[in-house]
Amino acid sequence: MTEVSRRRLFGYAGAGVALAGAGATAGALAAQPKAAPRVVPFHGEHQAGITTAAQDRLHFVSFDVTTDKRAELVDLLREWTIAAERMTRGEEAADRGAVGGPQHAPPADTGEALGLSAASLTLTVGFGPSLFDKRFGLEEARPPALADLPRFPADDLDPKRSGGDICVQACADDPQVAVHAVRNLARIGFGAVAVRWSQLGFGRTSSTTKDQATPRNLFGFKDGTNNIKAENPDELRDHVWVRDGDGPQWMAGGTYLVARRIRMHIETWDRTSLAEQEAIVGRKKGSGAPLGQAEEFDPVDLHVKGAGGVPLIPEDAHVRLAAAESLGGVKILRRGYNFTDGSDGFGHLDAGLFFICFNRDPRRQFVPMQQALSSKDTMMEYLKHNGSGLFACPPGVRPGEFWGQRLF
Amino acid sequence: MTEVSRRRLFGYAGAGVALAGAGATAGALAAQPKAAPRVVPFHGEHQAGITTAAQDRLHFVSFDVTTDKRAELVDLLREWTIAAERMTRGEEAADRGAVGGPQHAPPADTGEALGLSAASLTLTVGFGPSLFDKRFGLEEARPPALADLPRFPADDLDPKRSGGDICVQACADDPQVAVHAVRNLARIGFGAVAVRWSQLGFGRTSSTTKDQATPRNLFGFKDGTNNIKAENPDELRDHVWVRDGDGPQWMAGGTYLVARRIRMHIETWDRTSLAEQEAIVGRKKGSGAPLGQAEEFDPVDLHVKGAGGVPLIPEDAHVRLAAAESLGGVKILRRGYNFTDGSDGFGHLDAGLFFICFNRDPRRQFVPMQQALSSKDTMMEYLKHNGSGLFACPPGVRPGEFWGQRLF
Repeated sequence: MTEVSRRRLFGYAGAGVALAGAGATAGALAAQPKAAPRVVPFHGEHQAGITTAAQDRLHFVSFDVTTDKRAELVDLLREWTIAAERMTRGEEAADRGAVGGPQHAPPADTGEALGLSAASLTLTVGFGPSLFDKRFGLEEARPPALADLPRFPADDLDPKRSGGDICVQACADDPQVAVHAVRNLARIGFGAVAVRWSQLGFGRTSSTTKDQATPRNLFGFKDGTNNIKAENPDELRDHVWVRDGDGPQWMAGGTYLVARRIRMHIETWDRTSLAEQEAIVGRKKGSGAPLGQAEEFDPVDLHVKGAGGVPLIPEDAHVRLAAAESLGGVKILRRGYNFTDGSDGFGHLDAGLFFICFNRDPRRQFVPMQQALSSKDTMMEYLKHNGSGLFACPPGVRPGEFWGQRLF
Repeated sequence: MTEVSRRRLFGYAGAGVALAGAGATAGALAAQPKAAPRVVPFHGEHQAGITTAAQDRLHFVSFDVTTDKRAELVDLLREWTIAAERMTRGEEAADRGAVGGPQHAPPADTGEALGLSAASLTLTVGFGPSLFDKRFGLEEARPPALADLPRFPADDLDPKRSGGDICVQACADDPQVAVHAVRNLARIGFGAVAVRWSQLGFGRTSSTTKDQATPRNLFGFKDGTNNIKAENPDELRDHVWVRDGDGPQWMAGGTYLVARRIRMHIETWDRTSLAEQEAIVGRKKGSGAPLGQAEEFDPVDLHVKGAGGVPLIPEDAHVRLAAAESLGGVKILRRGYNFTDGSDGFGHLDAGLFFICFNRDPRRQFVPMQQALSSKDTMMEYLKHNGSGLFACPPGVRPGEFWGQRLF
């Protein structure tokens, strides 16, 4: 056997190890309904994992590059691209994989995804501002839009959850598939990169296609109703994809990723009245309808007034401050996830929203939006931003290319 | 409307809010294959979540009781039982729930599970040794089998990840459903309990019924092949359920839960050869077959010898040390989960196995097994136990009873 692929040996296309062995019965697979082994194409004009229908689970990782040799960095990106493309097809990270190689060498895949489907895995890479320092001779290639984020009011950033030279966003419908992918990239990168921080998200808080139902965040509200959707090419062109002439040519077709680890003080929120919660958000908790409207997708009307001429959507409501109308037309593509990371040591869950957004120029999109929210949004009383990252995601790769090839 | 139930308003039995609204189409649910809304019965002779077919996701929480009033503790358990039973049915934590109550009161449910199915949720409660101190007059009721665990060789326990007065194990096929349940129990317990620690598990590492395929741990190996299975009442009677006469009568039909947070040094493991990995585990990585056998479920034969009379399963292999044959017949019911909690600050993922087992008497089962493993198992070079908990899980409740009623 020259190649052991996850799917060929173990999965849908293969014999199904799940059915082998004395203890398994013919009903084994039937008893465990699995999502279809959906494969998201890896190659394309843009990277997958941005407008791809948001998968249910996330593992996000930020790496420090530990080598100072440009050639080693390029080799790593080349190796990573091959492994990433394989894993998104549902295969092992490398030929021969976990069990097909020589007995006396470490396996070329870690094995915990054997038997699992591709689970819609996408791997999306981004380069942080710190990568563009003199180590790799990339100073001149740094896009002006990759400007360090300013300090926002109420920021409480933990350096151990912030920054990094390279990020990889792994999204999948099976968390074990996402974790496996990140872990194997880290393994392949041993000696060249080290994990700086990583974050699991257990539930998506955004829809990125029109056929996805809007999920709920840990405030219990539908989140991202007015998100940019994949079916809207005009909005993607205006707000997401970097165009020719926007900056260095290597970023054309790319986008900028902003990640924010937003701790939610859910215990305080849970002791707030329903009316107060809805006033803070500007939507009904049940339906997700904007205040003053009937249905979730009714347009937000910031001008409806109630008794005494008071706006139904308060001046400091989240939907008002985040509305394109309030921000000179600014929009972003949101792709965040709920998280719970144990407890905070003070009797509470350490839970919140791992916010991810994609934008064509954060200086004109995420930054002014967050300036408005962090200074005026009543919701900020219940939030603490304690992690932050900004990354330039290069355009998609064609077969044979590697991640960020046009940068090097 | 007098009652707003998650399923009635939003779920399979109801109108399906997912389908409402201008942006949703008739294909919305079809595009998101969901597990069937399986409901695991809450009432019974034993608690659910022990022999229940292991669900895919875990949220485990340990609470400190912060009140010193016995009556408040009993009230809490009563309230919790009602909420737990509702949530396992796929309903909100309380009548009226997230959006059906008065506008000027905090909602009776936090809302993030609106629209989600029951997802096979089980909630399993346990009482730690520290609950049986003089605060609640329970000293006499403490079962001898709930003896504090000894210190094992190589233990490196973090008090912030260990112990606790009460634990709740929430398992579900949807992690948001498990997190929602724990969060609402914590909310209901405000003023009486505080979260001491909590742990998410993203993938099960055990099967507890014969029709479940054996999953893989983060060493890439199938885990728990020889687990006690629900279909084996003799083994459950001998090794899992506390019998009349085993100790205090309130525990008859219950069991003891041991939780261990086992950090795996996966980076070191990944640089070990396949042969070495298989020798450490005592099984083939691909098939899961015991060394010297052909199929996963072939019986482990500790006496097969290879070239030169050397045992094929080494003396210090994990399967040998953990085998009932090596431990005087001792078995446990395993129900663990893979975890990844960000990074360790030293360039590695903080990943491992959140080990959970159930046994009739840990003094005769888990403790001698862990003594053997912690002193002889070669695998220990790749492990660090940094969290630990021991809890007495009372028997199941009948309708109208509350968790642990026979204790009070």
